[in-house]
This record gives sequence, structure tokens and C-alpha cells, in this order.
Amino acid sequence: MNYKAVTNVLGKILFLLAVFMTIPIVVDLIYQENTWQAFLYPVIGCLVVSIAINVFIRPKKTVLHAKEGFVIVALAWIIISLIGAIPFVITKVLPNYMNAFFETVAGFTTTGASVIADVESCPHSILFWRSFTNWIGGMGILVFVLAITPNFDSGSIHVLRAESTGPNVGKLVSKMSLTARILYTIYIVLTVALFIMLICGKMPVFDSICASLSTAGTGGFSVRNASIGAYGSTYYDMVIAIFMFLFGINFSVFYLILVGSISRVLRNEELLTYVIIVIVATFAIAIDILSVYGDFGTAMHHSFFQVASIVSTTGFSSTDFNTWPTFAKMILLFLMITGASAGSTAGGFKIARGIVLAKVAFVDLRKMLNPRVVVCPKLNGEPISTETAQTTKTYIITYFALMLVSFLLISIENYGDVETNISAVVSCFNNIGPGFGKVGPTSTYFGYSWFSKLILCLDMLAGRLEIFPIILLFHPTTWKK
Amino acid sequence: MNYKAVTNVLGKILFLLAVFMTIPIVVDLIYQENTWQAFLYPVIGCLVVSIAINVFIRPKKTVLHAKEGFVIVALAWIIISLIGAIPFVITKVLPNYMNAFFETVAGFTTTGASVIADVESCPHSILFWRSFTNWIGGMGILVFVLAITPNFDSGSIHVLRAESTGPNVGKLVSKMSLTARILYTIYIVLTVALFIMLICGKMPVFDSICASLSTAGTGGFSVRNASIGAYGSTYYDMVIAIFMFLFGINFSVFYLILVGSISRVLRNEELLTYVIIVIVATFAIAIDILSVYGDFGTAMHHSFFQVASIVSTTGFSSTDFNTWPTFAKMILLFLMITGASAGSTAGGFKIARGIVLAKVAFVDLRKMLNPRVVVCPKLNGEPISTETAQTTKTYIITYFALMLVSFLLISIENYGDVETNISAVVSCFNNIGPGFGKVGPTSTYFGYSWFSKLILCLDMLAGRLEIFPIILLFHPTTWKK
Repeated sequence: MNYKAVTNVLGKILFLLAVFMTIPIVVDLIYQENTWQAFLYPVIGCLVVSIAINVFIRPKKTVLHAKEGFVIVALAWIIISLIGAIPFVITKVLPNYMNAFFETVAGFTTTGASVIADVESCPHSILFWRSFTNWIGGMGILVFVLAITPNFDSGSIHVLRAESTGPNVGKLVSKMSLTARILYTIYIVLTVALFIMLICGKMPVFDSICASLSTAGTGGFSVRNASIGAYGSTYYDMVIAIFMFLFGINFSVFYLILVGSISRVLRNEELLTYVIIVIVATFAIAIDILSVYGDFGTAMHHSFFQVASIVSTTGFSSTDFNTWPTFAKMILLFLMITGASAGSTAGGFKIARGIVLAKVAFVDLRKMLNPRVVVCPKLNGEPISTETAQTTKTYIITYFALMLVSFLLISIENYGDVETNISAVVSCFNNIGPGFGKVGPTSTYFGYSWFSKLILCLDMLAGRLEIFPIILLFHPTTWKK
Repeated sequence: MNYKAVTNVLGKILFLLAVFMTIPIVVDLIYQENTWQAFLYPVIGCLVVSIAINVFIRPKKTVLHAKEGFVIVALAWIIISLIGAIPFVITKVLPNYMNAFFETVAGFTTTGASVIADVESCPHSILFWRSFTNWIGGMGILVFVLAITPNFDSGSIHVLRAESTGPNVGKLVSKMSLTARILYTIYIVLTVALFIMLICGKMPVFDSICASLSTAGTGGFSVRNASIGAYGSTYYDMVIAIFMFLFGINFSVFYLILVGSISRVLRNEELLTYVIIVIVATFAIAIDILSVYGDFGTAMHHSFFQVASIVSTTGFSSTDFNTWPTFAKMILLFLMITGASAGSTAGGFKIARGIVLAKVAFVDLRKMLNPRVVVCPKLNGEPISTETAQTTKTYIITYFALMLVSFLLISIENYGDVETNISAVVSCFNNIGPGFGKVGPTSTYFGYSWFSKLILCLDMLAGRLEIFPIILLFHPTTWKK
């Protein structure tokens, strides 16, 4: 383990976090709510430590291996959550640090699970910070560091791999930092486009900014207690639903469209599956909730919004879906697990992984019948490597194992019933936000004990960073010299 | 596919089923309830078809490959369930054939999920038949055929593999038919021992027979509406709990004890894990339900009974555990999934598979950090082969995938809530019986539609036969010449 190189990168992260946290100070200066100090203290702290690291710790070798990539990403995410929680405590929005940490982890991991019942009474700086954490977490803070740091190419692929979503992360262009810059450019352009469309629909500017940031990161923090449903506007619902759907698409698809490779887009099996899942789920739920809403138009409206919100793991709600019939809820639970596309800002298991597993399992079954047969499963026309197949299998095993253990651990306190606890873990692990029962869209996670909240925080981090960085932190081999 | 050889074996199964179904006729003659015809008709039908097959279909080659092994087992289990359901219809205990089929599948697969609310009003022959299906299904009907058929050794290992439980089925002795005979002998001796102990406790003879058969098969069909709790006897509860625990142990352990290889028994990691799981779960639940029962003794009594019942996937209840706090229920849900040992009569995922997956995943993670490292995971001191690791991974993927799809399918009708549906699928797939909510220990599966029942039947069969035989029935390669 190259401790100096790891610390060096973490120093850069702290500097970047300080820059990000000055923006809520600006917001506070506009709204004059006297909360700027809550952000200033952590900003100063980050700057001091960051400069100290830069001055005193200079690694001899800057090359990063897979191991360092995992460790940097895991530690970076834990550190930014620990620091990002401070303003909640100082402003007394969440005086308990555990609650503040939970809210911040939910923000950065784009889960959007909240412990604040009355968000409408929060100062604007805090509301902005919540949505902004969603946005930062969506594409990833390390990817941002890559995008803005020159001469950081040796081994940076490991960092990108550890932070990005999906089973098989490739570069868009040969240079890593350029790839990161392209990804962030697409991300910013889409966010601004959403903001303009909301402004055009006369949503207040502050609400539009926050909604755009939260939607882009597929986080789902809202500035209204009743989420997007509070505005009662079909236009907002549809615009946001469409953008949630878009942010669930692999960003390389947008890049391919930009460079004119439409044929490769059309051959993308994950995109096709994603579109089919959304269409089928929307119609199935609409039919199921028809009796609740009376007319098919309203049913389709809420169904499409909720499907887009859950499959993209955003977690906004246009209505209280906790009161829907079981079938509709089970489809939502299913979508929570599948998640959207690899390489998007969405969480969940990722459709690409599902396709890889299905194809590999199909071939494995065939081999069970005829052990001598030689077949190689393919994705998007290219063979699935044994390594990808192996890693994806290990992924699903740890994925279900961690969820099972989490179910048990958060049940110790006997707070939630079976439905509440299962949906809480599934929702947090897959970075959605709301679940069913006591953690439904009209409730919060406030009632859980600090222990259960800690478990759910680990679940959110493990989910966002796709398990390996977090569990490798606890693997003895990681810390060997 | 060697169709003639497959048909030939199925003919033997039919003959055996006919023999088994004559025993309820004897029971009816004792109790004079005039239900013997309900069994006589299917007996005659089985005999006629079986003899016809034996006379007209003579396979040239009797060698069976893996493919034929899977197909024989899958078809045999579907056929015996289809025929075993007939007496329920004729006696009008379950006039609807779908319900009768569900009850029979639940019997043979040792699930013990029932659609009969008032079992105490059923004729004795039917009650005996229910428990007897548990017993036949526990060790497996094909294993029985192996045990009694001479000259059936070519490829019979494939049949044993496809029907037995666990990831890695070996022979106890070199000859297959002798292995099967040893297994059945241990099974019968243990069943008789349980019967004697119940009789000594003054349980009525008929109740003792049925309880012994159901316990041995880890099925859980009871002749009383309130299951074993109806007797209100601590002695019965404890005797049955201990035997449920024993029937969850790999039968090769009993063989090793008989031949004096105690050292190999003590090195058995699965046995050790099983014992630890039972002890930890018993104490954890006892502490959690202490507030319900007041004193620690009663809490331990019900906790141990329920842990043994669920981990061995029997499904008996000594009390209504549906009213227990969430943590206790979550532990039970966890035990439903782990199940007991491979090579036992219990269902579930099997602890051996869990150990294999955990060890392989641990090594995979280590390889992720240091791709050049060479480590081979071991089980009971012997290396886990790549093939076993692969098959176990494919197993868990299809296991969770099938459960997820089943959740969705049985939710279409909007009968059960989320807790009911999840526990129904988990309970049926892992061959336990009762779940929570509307399928709790004091309720039945009667309320589900025929479609949901069919899905649950497939789940029970897939669970008992450990998935591959059932899904390979639907794999196109299976039916190629």
C-alpha cells in the first residue's frame, strides 16, 4: 500500500470539498439566513489540512494500483460524508451528528433517504447543500478530481473503475482525464437543460436549481415535504420523469450520439433492455393502480413518474405510492434491485450486470447438460470475458449476502416491521431513498436507532461504490505492506 | 436424449408409487372411513401403465447421462405429484384439483405448505398419505428406486446427484445401489426411533406415526390444526425439536459415526457451522421473545423448537410465531434461506453452499487486490474444485432470480401484502411451509389464486430438486436429439 500517494489524493479531495462548500455560503449571503458560518468552519478546516498534506507529504512514486484505487475511493467517500455533515449540526437542523452523517451519506451516495421530516423549514443554504451533495455524488468526486487534475494518468483508471457504476468500465477516449472531462461536460449540459425546462414552466429559480441537481445525480432530495408531488404540476412531473429516465442511461451512449455512432447505440443491449423494462413496468403498474385513480391518464402519469424515479434510483415521488396495491409495490421493489444502466448516475444492481449474469447462467446450464460444449456468451456483440463473468458473480453473491445481514442487523431494535426493514435495506443499498411502510415516501428514516442508521449508511456507501471498495477496506490483505 | 431409458425408469417409479399408495388403503380398512377407493383407482392406473411400459418399451442402451438424470428426476416428481393428488379430489377433502396438486407437491417436496384449514376433519387415510408423502419426498423416490433395483448402476450417480440435496453429492461406498440402501436404512432407523420416543410419551399411535414420518422428511404436515403446539406437551416439543435438528444433518455424518470415523465427523465444517447457527439463533430469539413469554425457560423452549423447525425446513410450530417481534421473525426468515445441511432431508440453500460461496468470494476478493496471487479455497480440508465453485455460483444466481420473479408473479392478483408474498415464496422455495402474515402458522395458502398456487408449486419443486432439474426442463438444449 502506497500510503503517501493515497494521502496525497485525499488532500486534493479535501481541497475540492472546500471549494464545493463555499457555494452554500454564497447561497446564504443571498437569502441572509445567517448560516454561512456553518459552512465556513469546515471550509477552513479542509483548506488547512489539504495545504498541510500538499506541503509535507510528497509521494516518491505516484503510480496507483488496483488496491490503492479501492482504498482512495472508499476513504474519500467516508471523509467527505463526515465533513459534509458538519453544517447540519452547526445550523441545528440536525443537532445529532449521527443523523447529520446519515443525511450527508444519503446525499453523496445519491440515495436521498432523509431523516428531516419538515424540509420546508430548513435554511436555503442547507437545502442547496443537500441537493448539491446529490449532484456531486452522482458522477463522483474522484472523477471530478481526474477531470481537473493534469498529469494524473498513471493508474487513474483504477480510481475511475472503483468509483464508476457498472461491471465493466472503459475509457471513452484513450486519455483518462479527457474521459472524465467529457463525462462531466455531458453531465453539466444535461443538468442545465433540465434547469431551463423547469424555469420555462415557471418553477421558482431556487426550487429549479435544487430539483435539477437532485435529478441529475439521481439523488432525490427535494426542497418540499411532499417531494415533486407538492407542486401538483403535470408539466414538472413529466419533465423530471423524462430526465430521471435520461440520467439512468449509460453516459457513453450520449457520447456515442455526439460523435455520430448511432449504429453502436442501437446495438446496445442494455439500453434496449432498459427501455423495455420502463415501458412494461409503466403499463403494468398503470393497469394495477387504475382502480386507485379512476382514469387511465392519471394512472399512467403517476406510474411513469414512479417507474422512472425508482428505476433510476432517484426516489422522488409524485404521490404516496405506499398506498398502492401489492403488485405495483412489488414491481417497484423489483425495479429498486435492477436499477438502471451501468455508467449512469443511477444506483442499483445495474441492468448490464443482470444481462451478463443471465447470459452466463444460460451458458453454464447448457454446459451442465453437455460438459464438452464450447459457447462464449456475448454482450453488445463482444464476448464477455471470464474475468467480467467472475467479478459479476462475486458481486451478486456479496450483494445479496450484505443485504441479508443488513436485514438482520437493523431488525435487532424491533422498530420496523418486515416490510419496512426489507424495503429500507433494499432502498438504501440501491441508493433509491424511500421504501414502504415506516420508510414510505411520506415518512423518514428518523425513527431508526443510531446503530441501524450506521448499518444503513454502510449499505448506502457499499451500494454507491458497488461493494468492493467498502468491503475491501475490511479485508486483511488490503493493509499489508 | 435416450427417451426409452427415461420412460423405463419412470415406469419403475409408477410401480413404486402404486405400492406406496396401497398403505393408505390399509389405514382406511383399519379406521373404516370408506375412502379406500380414492386410493385404489390411482393404484390400478399406475400398475397398468407401469406394466405396459415394462412390456412394450425396452431401451437398447441403459446408460444414463447427466441430461437424462435431470429429466428423469424432474418428470418423476411432477408425475408422482399429479397422481398423488387424486385421492384428495375423490375423497372431496380438496374437490378442486389445483388445491389437491398444491397439497401433494407440498407433501412430496417436504414443504408442508397446506391449503386445508381444518385437517382434524380429514379421514385418517388422507392424513396418513399427507405425512407419508413428506417421508417419501425427504430421502427421494429415485433414491428408493436405486436402493431396491439391482443392476442399475450405469449412470445412476446422475440420478442421485439430481435428486439429492447439496452442492457436491458423493457416494458413501463405491456401489451406487449400496449407497442408496445405507441412506434409506439410516433414514428408517431414525424414523422408528422417533416413533418409539413419541409412543413412550403416550402420544396416540396414529399421531406418532404421522408426526414421525413428517419430521423425518422435514416436511411438517401435522394431523392437528395447531400443529405440534396442539398437544401442549413440552416432552413432544423437545423430542421432535431434537429430531428435526438431527434430520437437518448430512446423512453421511451418521454413516461416518457408524463406521467409527469420528475424526472426520469432527472436521466437518458444515456440521460445526450448523450447530453454531442453531445455538446462536436459539439464544438470540429467546432473548428477543422474552417479553412475550415472561420466563426464559418458555422462551428457550419455543425458540429452540422454532429454530430447529425452520432451519431444518420442517415447518412445524409450537406457537404462533407470526406474532413475534420483527427481529425474531427476521432471524427465522434468514434461517429459511440458509436451510440445513447438504445430504440431509432438509431444504433451503444449504449451509455447505453458503460456506463454499463465502470461501470462494473471499479468495475472489483477494485476487481483486493481487491478481497474481494463487490461493485455493478448501472445504473440510479438501480443495473446492472449480466446477463446484462454478455450479454453486450459478445456483445462487438462479436461486435469487427465480425467487424475485416468483415474488412478482404471485403479486399480480393483489391477494397478499409484501410481507405475505415474500415469506410465501421464501417458504415454498426453501420447502419450509408456513410464512408470515396471511400464510402464517395459523393460516393456509388456500386464499391464493390457482395461478399463484401453480407458481408456488413450481417453486417448491425447484427448491426440493435444487433448481437445475426443473429449469433444465425448459432449456431448449435438453430436448435436442
